[in-house]
Amino acid sequence: MRAEILSCGTELLLGHITDTNATYLAQSLAPLGIDLFFVSQVGDNQGRIVETLRRAWERSDLIIMTGGLGPTEDDLARESISALLGETMQVDPELEANLRAMFARMGLKMPERNVKQATLIPSAQALPNPIGTAPGWWVEKDGRIIVAMPGVPREMYRMWQEQAIPRLQPFLGGIIFTRILRVNGLGESTVEERLDSLLHSTNPTIATYAKEDAIDVRITAKAATSEEAERLVAQMEGSARQILGNHVFGTNKDTLASVVGALLLARKQTLGVMESLTGGLLASTITDVSDSSNYFVGGLVAYSTELKTQMGVPREILKQYGAVSKETAIAMAHAVRERLGTDFGLGITGVVGPDTQEGKPVGTVYIAVAGPEGMVASSGPGWRANRSDNKRLSVFAALNLLRRLLEGSIKPE
Amino acid sequence: MRAEILSCGTELLLGHITDTNATYLAQSLAPLGIDLFFVSQVGDNQGRIVETLRRAWERSDLIIMTGGLGPTEDDLARESISALLGETMQVDPELEANLRAMFARMGLKMPERNVKQATLIPSAQALPNPIGTAPGWWVEKDGRIIVAMPGVPREMYRMWQEQAIPRLQPFLGGIIFTRILRVNGLGESTVEERLDSLLHSTNPTIATYAKEDAIDVRITAKAATSEEAERLVAQMEGSARQILGNHVFGTNKDTLASVVGALLLARKQTLGVMESLTGGLLASTITDVSDSSNYFVGGLVAYSTELKTQMGVPREILKQYGAVSKETAIAMAHAVRERLGTDFGLGITGVVGPDTQEGKPVGTVYIAVAGPEGMVASSGPGWRANRSDNKRLSVFAALNLLRRLLEGSIKPE
Repeated sequence: MRAEILSCGTELLLGHITDTNATYLAQSLAPLGIDLFFVSQVGDNQGRIVETLRRAWERSDLIIMTGGLGPTEDDLARESISALLGETMQVDPELEANLRAMFARMGLKMPERNVKQATLIPSAQALPNPIGTAPGWWVEKDGRIIVAMPGVPREMYRMWQEQAIPRLQPFLGGIIFTRILRVNGLGESTVEERLDSLLHSTNPTIATYAKEDAIDVRITAKAATSEEAERLVAQMEGSARQILGNHVFGTNKDTLASVVGALLLARKQTLGVMESLTGGLLASTITDVSDSSNYFVGGLVAYSTELKTQMGVPREILKQYGAVSKETAIAMAHAVRERLGTDFGLGITGVVGPDTQEGKPVGTVYIAVAGPEGMVASSGPGWRANRSDNKRLSVFAALNLLRRLLEGSIKPE
Repeated sequence: MRAEILSCGTELLLGHITDTNATYLAQSLAPLGIDLFFVSQVGDNQGRIVETLRRAWERSDLIIMTGGLGPTEDDLARESISALLGETMQVDPELEANLRAMFARMGLKMPERNVKQATLIPSAQALPNPIGTAPGWWVEKDGRIIVAMPGVPREMYRMWQEQAIPRLQPFLGGIIFTRILRVNGLGESTVEERLDSLLHSTNPTIATYAKEDAIDVRITAKAATSEEAERLVAQMEGSARQILGNHVFGTNKDTLASVVGALLLARKQTLGVMESLTGGLLASTITDVSDSSNYFVGGLVAYSTELKTQMGVPREILKQYGAVSKETAIAMAHAVRERLGTDFGLGITGVVGPDTQEGKPVGTVYIAVAGPEGMVASSGPGWRANRSDNKRLSVFAALNLLRRLLEGSIKPE
């Protein structure tokens, strides 16, 4: 199957945003066994969208469009598909009712222009969008498929996974099964080097991808039955896990925060954190997990040294070792554990940048976890990244330390 | 001048890398007054590169290629341009001598296949690459220009700035100036509806874009001089600001957090926050601003009701009104202001989802700011969104309330 991606949006051509949607889709197509030969970005201009669509229609079996499904005059994906196929858009009563109901739930009156988001053409089915106003379109005609999805990444990802891929299955010549192993604590090239002996396998395939919060190792098999595909993946997964050991923290949609949360829930234990360089991002990452209120009591963002003292970090430790020190991280962990009465207390301090602090370089980070059986601590050498990356990397280092303590792969002192 | 970008590399089509080169070039083209109408990514396949080049040659004045200039068989940019124009590549003795000298300086013998990096065609001049082995090509023929540059971003950036832009200057017909107005508190379609009378202007142009943290209104003018372009933008900006009022919180790279930070810095005042539903994201967003330690003392992520009490929220208020209430938000604001000794205290509580709480729907949010001159409070009707969006939207609502108080557009009670 030959695929082509068409991303619509003048903001792409002005460089206001980067087409990460195309990257996401490209990563998803390869393991499905779909060949991607062309990617195009076109502005919000119907003539140019139709021109590009027509060429894609001539040379590809599957055209994946993103963007251009909004309610404004600039949103021209539906109009362009209709023009290409010579079909007329009509408001679908059910889609319109859904859309009006969605606005009503928000306590808003639907602006009349939004009604175009409830249109279809005869060759199109709607792809539901549970987190946005724009349904997608699934178009099948003359042996060709067009999938049109919103440009907002989180809406597109979900529609692609939940709506488009299942509809593509019958065209793929076999059942595809994929599992992702999520890896923390190793860089992408190290993961690739260690997996070298497996990388040349053709079924299953195995490939690495650097994500914001982990390195993903994606294993994909194709077989006549889903049992066989799963068996092939399980076999490869065993080999990969043997090589990567406890750097693998989860699979598929697991995050470090969800894994830590599940471990705490299973033990019926609680957590509190005191953070400085991460400025609240640690607590925020923990509370991204939907049942986190069952184990996360709270966090103290002790940005000033004075507030650290007020929250129970001994003044002598801050004075003797500085706010950026292993000793302070340990004192923060103990202080928050005691003050919040939790089973585990996590303390994290460091230098987020752009300026050095106490003579320590940007990216220095000290992390400590105090628990019922004792304490573990770790430190980072300095990430040398920008401010927001330093925050993010420090949060993942902290969660990974806690995970390894909870899993028993490191022992408390 | 009509431009088109063609990025070559199979790694783009496998999703191993994202085409940030196209974003960089797009950002550079707009202010040069060059219209970018198409961007394409094609794999390392000569047939498909030539096919895409030929179409670009037919419809564009300027074709900017990146990638495909390496020494391997997969690097096909030169071969494809030669095929398009029907010209033969020949080794240029001076380029070859430079290349051999570059390898010699590194203490290496040049692999013979690298000699293709020293080739030219009659219509091409070499663009020097001081930090890599691949010179670029500047091709002028039949009123068309092709600029071929390496795919390695830092080599490409430098070649574009130092070699390509100066060669393009004689072809540019005017100066472009752009300003973005950043808007909070209105949806994209509402912003567009209100600006309806301005949207059809052709110089300056005005357009809206939904971003994660704001609606952007972009105003762009083209004129003979930068003074004139700026004057045209300023005029349109005045009209837009009159319509949008204090929903405009900043321009260009401003964020709500940076605007609030600048206001606090100017007043030499400090801030502390107590948050529940946002789970640390409010503090984290505030501390994304690099000099935030000058005004942000810290935050309390009081996820449990018990912790709210411990941090100074009166037990009677929690009991009488519930943890999710205006009264609790106000008590949180007062408590954090007092406990942290800051000029301003911000309290935020609500229902983040997925479950309702105290019988209040998901997305309910109460926000209060206590300051030296009194208190303001606001509440949200319930965002329709998922957990992480509810957190994000609540954070922006909180920062916007604080901004409006600091700017004086709402008065404290």
